[in-house]
Amino acid sequence: MLKSEDHFLEIVNSLFPREHPHMVVGRGDDCAVLKCPASLCMSSDLFLEDVHFRTRYFTPEDIGHKALAVNLSDLAAGGARPLGFNLNLIWPVYLDEEFCRSMLSSMAELGAKFKLALTGGDLSFGKSLGLAVCIWGKSPARQMLRGKAEPGDVLFVVGKAGLAACGLSLLEENDPGLDRYPECVAQHLRPRPLVREGQVLAGIEEVKGLMDVSDGLARDLPRFCRRGTGVEICSDFRVHPEVAFFCRDRGLDPLATALKGGEDYALLGACTRKGWDTVKKKILDCRRLGTVTDKPGIFLQDRELGLKGFDHFEK
Amino acid sequence: MLKSEDHFLEIVNSLFPREHPHMVVGRGDDCAVLKCPASLCMSSDLFLEDVHFRTRYFTPEDIGHKALAVNLSDLAAGGARPLGFNLNLIWPVYLDEEFCRSMLSSMAELGAKFKLALTGGDLSFGKSLGLAVCIWGKSPARQMLRGKAEPGDVLFVVGKAGLAACGLSLLEENDPGLDRYPECVAQHLRPRPLVREGQVLAGIEEVKGLMDVSDGLARDLPRFCRRGTGVEICSDFRVHPEVAFFCRDRGLDPLATALKGGEDYALLGACTRKGWDTVKKKILDCRRLGTVTDKPGIFLQDRELGLKGFDHFEK
Repeated sequence: MLKSEDHFLEIVNSLFPREHPHMVVGRGDDCAVLKCPASLCMSSDLFLEDVHFRTRYFTPEDIGHKALAVNLSDLAAGGARPLGFNLNLIWPVYLDEEFCRSMLSSMAELGAKFKLALTGGDLSFGKSLGLAVCIWGKSPARQMLRGKAEPGDVLFVVGKAGLAACGLSLLEENDPGLDRYPECVAQHLRPRPLVREGQVLAGIEEVKGLMDVSDGLARDLPRFCRRGTGVEICSDFRVHPEVAFFCRDRGLDPLATALKGGEDYALLGACTRKGWDTVKKKILDCRRLGTVTDKPGIFLQDRELGLKGFDHFEK
Repeated sequence: MLKSEDHFLEIVNSLFPREHPHMVVGRGDDCAVLKCPASLCMSSDLFLEDVHFRTRYFTPEDIGHKALAVNLSDLAAGGARPLGFNLNLIWPVYLDEEFCRSMLSSMAELGAKFKLALTGGDLSFGKSLGLAVCIWGKSPARQMLRGKAEPGDVLFVVGKAGLAACGLSLLEENDPGLDRYPECVAQHLRPRPLVREGQVLAGIEEVKGLMDVSDGLARDLPRFCRRGTGVEICSDFRVHPEVAFFCRDRGLDPLATALKGGEDYALLGACTRKGWDTVKKKILDCRRLGTVTDKPGIFLQDRELGLKGFDHFEK
């Protein structure tokens, strides 16, 4: 069991560096003093037990990783370079020190990959486990915003779409065939934040905007596109083989499943037609999703896909 | 009831300004882009139902106020000028829109007082109400740290000590004589963050350090003083009349009660003997607490006060 806040701080200090080029005054005082770029990106996300994860199938390491990964993904969508984060931790008394150490180790490991400073936070006991991360970093010279794509522009996806939602279904149902879906499960438990990809894309002039697909493409496409525009999905857009397999098994439409599934932390971007070659060349895991049109709605070969979430497309 | 995240965002946008000199890209994108000072102070604090507050005696307005006030207090202790904050909100389904609007109105009112930007956040449903705020602002030219006071220096307190703890006892016990303790109750429900005072103190050269007394002086004094030093409490240090009255009523020691009580969000500071006159002149609600000595422990007229929390004073 965690004996006290001091005991918790000992664990934190054994795992996270106490010095960092951007941390002038570190943890342990009332507030951290940070050396900051003039243009800062900041974002925060909650990660709560029985809302965003279950301890039944998330290991402590998965929890520590994902709580930070979902925040890194927001900065990735801004094309930002992450520098540090604050962690507010709600800790239920029944969890032991080992759990805490494993969870924070994994968070520290992901943080170290991006050379992040842990710049402060708070600890409180509570009924169930919860993590509230606030992350900050250096904004790119050109801001990556939504609503900038024009009809004719290419829409693309970096990373996977629809895998995490299949993974979630399989884990929730405790499916005995779980090991047939290693990528779906991994995508739900340990999404890889596309930080490097976001930074590279922000550096390509023809890229017009970027966003983090957390609620699924069906919900996030209308948030990304301007009012009065729509999307024509590429006729050759292929869903991931595991998603296809999952859908065949259950009689589901693979495309709709891929578009509706959330929490992949993939990046959705738009670029000019000319820019698409550069994007493809510079980003490995990138696929063309469709084209922006001047017809509100989402279409596949002239057929409107009546996907939930598209009520944001105002005509 | 709150119908959706969009519904919540409507309320937020009706209460908090969408434009701010330090907010280049505001709420609604993946991350905010902020115009920042080169030296930034940042802090975050949780404010959770049944841990930090109860809805039985906290109005929605009290909750909104205090969740932000405790964070402002951390920046006050750094002598910083607050500029903006992120709000992560855990929302239980049984609370209605009216509650949400009242809570956020009061938070917006306190934010407006300090011209703060609400720069983003997250909303999630959860079992009980919780607020995780991450606040940031401009660091003063001289950092206000702990552990800098020397034997002979004056220790002082800005604001009230011990009132909030008495207020908490009275509220928890549903004391019928509650109206005899208006200041204790107000100090627990609506602490006033001493932001201006912190900034003024950071500008006085003779002030050696500052901290936010959130866990009570008995716990926070050892955190503030260097190892190997101690405190001689002024023989004329007087507790607040309401604390004295509360203690007489219950046969408690007033000084011990005032020193042990937490959550006042008073400021504890140290200055040179010479500087004390300046501090007194510039800060209205400021009292001398004692003198730093080279004898570890906390003393009143040569008698060591055996107060819990002093195990940090290592000899």
